[in-house]
Amino acid sequence: MRSDINLAVVGATGLVGRKILKVLEERDFNYKSLTLLASEKSAGQIINLNRKEHIVSGIKDSSFDNIDIALFSAGGSASKIFAPIAAQSGCIVVDNSSAWRMDENVPLIVPEVNPDDLKGHRGIIANPNCSTIQMVLALQTVHELFGLKKVVCSTYQSISGAGQKGISQLKDEIEGRIPDTRISPYQLAYNTVFHSFSEGNNYTEEELKMVNEPRKILHLPHLEMEVTCVRIPVLGGHGESLYIETEKEVDVSKLKSAYEETAGIVLTDKPENDIYPMILSAEDKDSVFIGRIRKAVNSSKALNMWVVADNLRKGAATNAVQIAELIAVNDLWEFDL
Amino acid sequence: MRSDINLAVVGATGLVGRKILKVLEERDFNYKSLTLLASEKSAGQIINLNRKEHIVSGIKDSSFDNIDIALFSAGGSASKIFAPIAAQSGCIVVDNSSAWRMDENVPLIVPEVNPDDLKGHRGIIANPNCSTIQMVLALQTVHELFGLKKVVCSTYQSISGAGQKGISQLKDEIEGRIPDTRISPYQLAYNTVFHSFSEGNNYTEEELKMVNEPRKILHLPHLEMEVTCVRIPVLGGHGESLYIETEKEVDVSKLKSAYEETAGIVLTDKPENDIYPMILSAEDKDSVFIGRIRKAVNSSKALNMWVVADNLRKGAATNAVQIAELIAVNDLWEFDL
Repeated sequence: MRSDINLAVVGATGLVGRKILKVLEERDFNYKSLTLLASEKSAGQIINLNRKEHIVSGIKDSSFDNIDIALFSAGGSASKIFAPIAAQSGCIVVDNSSAWRMDENVPLIVPEVNPDDLKGHRGIIANPNCSTIQMVLALQTVHELFGLKKVVCSTYQSISGAGQKGISQLKDEIEGRIPDTRISPYQLAYNTVFHSFSEGNNYTEEELKMVNEPRKILHLPHLEMEVTCVRIPVLGGHGESLYIETEKEVDVSKLKSAYEETAGIVLTDKPENDIYPMILSAEDKDSVFIGRIRKAVNSSKALNMWVVADNLRKGAATNAVQIAELIAVNDLWEFDL
Repeated sequence: MRSDINLAVVGATGLVGRKILKVLEERDFNYKSLTLLASEKSAGQIINLNRKEHIVSGIKDSSFDNIDIALFSAGGSASKIFAPIAAQSGCIVVDNSSAWRMDENVPLIVPEVNPDDLKGHRGIIANPNCSTIQMVLALQTVHELFGLKKVVCSTYQSISGAGQKGISQLKDEIEGRIPDTRISPYQLAYNTVFHSFSEGNNYTEEELKMVNEPRKILHLPHLEMEVTCVRIPVLGGHGESLYIETEKEVDVSKLKSAYEETAGIVLTDKPENDIYPMILSAEDKDSVFIGRIRKAVNSSKALNMWVVADNLRKGAATNAVQIAELIAVNDLWEFDL
């Protein structure tokens, strides 16, 4: 493995950017140099990492000239502009936005699920949507054992998915202040709201991501996905209620054993002791927690379950860093545009 | 209609009991006398109603001797004991607990859905579970238009479903106090928890109610119901994400028009203007709010929707008072045990 990696984090001052830096430090990612990039208005900020001070630079076309890999988390518009520029300079981009996910030349990667899709990448690699990542980890094992037919998912999503502004709005409302920034025209505290609607569509953008991304990651272009995404007043992570129909008969104990042996998954399922995945206990953890696994009421070829993960960690930062690790470990540095 | 009704409210000091009193006042329920009953430990409390003071009496076997109708909301054990005693004395019981709901001699009533099931009652009438009531109102119209085949429901339930103790625990946690009473060993604030598990079962009691009660109310004993019930940190009402498979092709605009003409339902569905049902805006309303109605992604014989109602009102108090009104209007006072 190379020890001369020049690494950049784009959007280093944002909620996910800062989490990426934390995860890089925790996992002891081996780099030679670390460049922190952000929009011009955040340039000059100082961030401490590994007991060193790093100054954030404003992003520009030449920012990637000597960078080997850049972890982007600066929103879709910045990724649309700068990811191709970076790739042109020979820098691999791991992009956390939705800008490139459905591009057929861009692999969409969950390291535990489809690592082989990284081979032959063309410089830009996409990190899936937070709620997609935890779901496909749960679905992959079901597919291997019983064959996936249909998935109905309802999400219980953390306000932190909308970044620092979302957290501020919720906290201000709960503590009785008038929020000075808001991500929703509606109150978040003691309420549920939906994400932005997709133009001319009754589905939200978040729901469409959760319909399309799993099909690509799991290589099941016709997988029947039905999704309702809801934001609830929590901060620690996302919950997902899944109803899954399968090709073969479901064997719950077989599935539980398989989950216990799957990297990235923690089986948390002892209803007799009131033990199940919770949003609060998933906070700041890198795993996907699965529980409430039970045969469907009406069919032996269906099951229900409950899946929780920290949306900023496995749903964003951790997954992105894991992709970078995969590239390093498998020496996937070379690419054709 | 009689104007000499002797009315009792059992569990008058509880969260639902007080809401029943409020709803009786608002709807101007015509009674001659009102008796407030509760456990011995609440006896002696004074409750103001219609500008009159009412003293709460401790419940005993003779409490129902001169009562025509009693609205019970004092928990399952009290209903198990006192509902038959009341009925023996000729008093009709409208019971809000789960004690009698699945008894084949007890009608389970949502006035907009199955009012005819009241005929031939034997003195005890059951009010369905809060989350059931709002769901069957939504399902009834779908069934009439397209035929129900399968329903997958995930709930987003208010802590107020656990009574005053639930509200206190959540508020204490949010305001940084150590709760002196709790309904869950887990923190409710910024978290999601499940209801009590049904003994020897991976389903919760709440989930099993939502599987069984709609089948009885809709007269569809084989309706395929798959349910996951989740408590979220809200107070104003319950949300429900519904995926519904139908016998015939779904026509969304036909369904919307039908909802607009259905008593008890408010269609709240303009995604282009970010208008959809919310838990906060349903609070203290008697209607069921339906929105996010959209064709399924994968089938023309399926749809998704979002249903919200105040669980203490339409989910409990209002529905119970409406049952009492039905009895009065249709003169269903006589019954055989």
